[in-house]
Amino acid sequence: MKTVTIAATQMACSDDIATNVANAEKLVRDAVSQGANIVLLQELFQSQYFCQIEDPAFFALAKPYEGNEVLSHFQSLAKELNVVLPVSFFEKANNAHFNSLAVIDADGGCLGVYRKTHIPHGAGYQEKYYFNPGDTGFQVWDTAVGRIGCGICWDQWFPECARSMVLQGADILLYPTAIGSDLFGGTPSSNRKWQRAMQGHAASNSVVVVASNRIGREAIGNGGTHLDFYGSSFIADAYGELVAEAGTDEEAVILATLDMDAIRFERAAWGFFRDRRPEMYDDLMTLDAAYQTASVRLS
Amino acid sequence: MKTVTIAATQMACSDDIATNVANAEKLVRDAVSQGANIVLLQELFQSQYFCQIEDPAFFALAKPYEGNEVLSHFQSLAKELNVVLPVSFFEKANNAHFNSLAVIDADGGCLGVYRKTHIPHGAGYQEKYYFNPGDTGFQVWDTAVGRIGCGICWDQWFPECARSMVLQGADILLYPTAIGSDLFGGTPSSNRKWQRAMQGHAASNSVVVVASNRIGREAIGNGGTHLDFYGSSFIADAYGELVAEAGTDEEAVILATLDMDAIRFERAAWGFFRDRRPEMYDDLMTLDAAYQTASVRLS
Repeated sequence: MKTVTIAATQMACSDDIATNVANAEKLVRDAVSQGANIVLLQELFQSQYFCQIEDPAFFALAKPYEGNEVLSHFQSLAKELNVVLPVSFFEKANNAHFNSLAVIDADGGCLGVYRKTHIPHGAGYQEKYYFNPGDTGFQVWDTAVGRIGCGICWDQWFPECARSMVLQGADILLYPTAIGSDLFGGTPSSNRKWQRAMQGHAASNSVVVVASNRIGREAIGNGGTHLDFYGSSFIADAYGELVAEAGTDEEAVILATLDMDAIRFERAAWGFFRDRRPEMYDDLMTLDAAYQTASVRLS
Repeated sequence: MKTVTIAATQMACSDDIATNVANAEKLVRDAVSQGANIVLLQELFQSQYFCQIEDPAFFALAKPYEGNEVLSHFQSLAKELNVVLPVSFFEKANNAHFNSLAVIDADGGCLGVYRKTHIPHGAGYQEKYYFNPGDTGFQVWDTAVGRIGCGICWDQWFPECARSMVLQGADILLYPTAIGSDLFGGTPSSNRKWQRAMQGHAASNSVVVVASNRIGREAIGNGGTHLDFYGSSFIADAYGELVAEAGTDEEAVILATLDMDAIRFERAAWGFFRDRRPEMYDDLMTLDAAYQTASVRLS
């Protein structure tokens, strides 16, 4: 598809799955009515962001990929509306649990599943308690709108993930997200840092980047704590410019129409992918290059 | 050093080396008079940007590292002013030629040389004609202001370079640059894309990023062409925010004072370097992951 209209959405989530699914469907229909060919929904939109606390009761929210009723629902919706839908879900895979995403093509077919590679952990975002680190590797899919790559939330901070998907030929990168305040409080909002990391991926890879984040306050458990999710969902073009951006606290559907031929032309013209030198990238395969390479001067 | 005052400079270059060196020295003295502990000068400031055309006469500008008079001059200056000076120069190394940078510590000692890894090529930026791709690998140095890493111009677009230097423990990344209009003309200025790529490195790595770029119009050769360099030198903090920024066409010294302990604290708190998964990064070691991995669906 030469010209693609991309939508990102954001919404608050309640503790009722049916309500959340219905609201997500409403946003998808709204986006398609405005011309969207692909609509990004936020991370784990079926529920509140249960990772705010560590409670084994929440493992019951995980469902297998096979026979997944919510995925089937969105497959029917995608087919009805002729729209590509990456759908985040909490996946139970025998005894493993993944923070996963199914890519549903515009004909309703499911192209496969990506499992979140990078798992965060910190006050209010205790994901290492719930999720195995993903085992699929970074994935791209050929959809009705072209080849797309999807990361999930924390993956969006890692240049390695974005680069890997573009090296696989992705022209659009999509990141469903759940991020907001942290339980330490007092720090400045990280929403601009969050945007800038991904604007950087867009500029460095000459690729379109889309992020969808939840909004609203969620208080889970009896600890008296809460998280305020900061929205700020956006679509960045291949210059890293925010061509569409949502606010921090309102439900939103944002759209941008982009000429993908022009983006591919520019990517080749700049030459970033001509001038890479993988033989110089050994440090990337380490966690601590100072320990692993003798060339570094330890202080 | 807990608190570091960083300066970036920008200036126009003439075809007279002595004039350019004197002007660079003036900017360093200006920056230090304002409190700078480290001053970044732009790429290849001794001359005009000769890579605008391919002319073998310009190889005569290259000088060896050993016995380099301009480097000796800046070593004396660094010692006199007690300032760290990364200095870009065109290096002749027997029959190889490199786009290089010497890191001069505040005591005047030279800590070593980095040779530009990624070499661009395009109308007006014909660097593959002049420079061997660097053979040093990405380097960091322990200086009076702490551990720094330096890339050179085109390196600044590559997330692999920034990540490698931070994996080696760098707290400040510095990029001397020569970038502006291209000879195709008509395209929008890329100065924001250029900034955003590096703001992305700052945000993704929670690291300080500094860039120094030249200004002014340079017409080299008899082809009637010219380049307009766009300045826009900047200092970005660990949120990727531009805490100091120069204009597009005036000579400038910009400064920022940053708490490096706070930046290191934040880097650990976010956990990016806890959650990396090098075992999933094999695609980064390829030029075309679609060809190299069987898991990808070719269209």
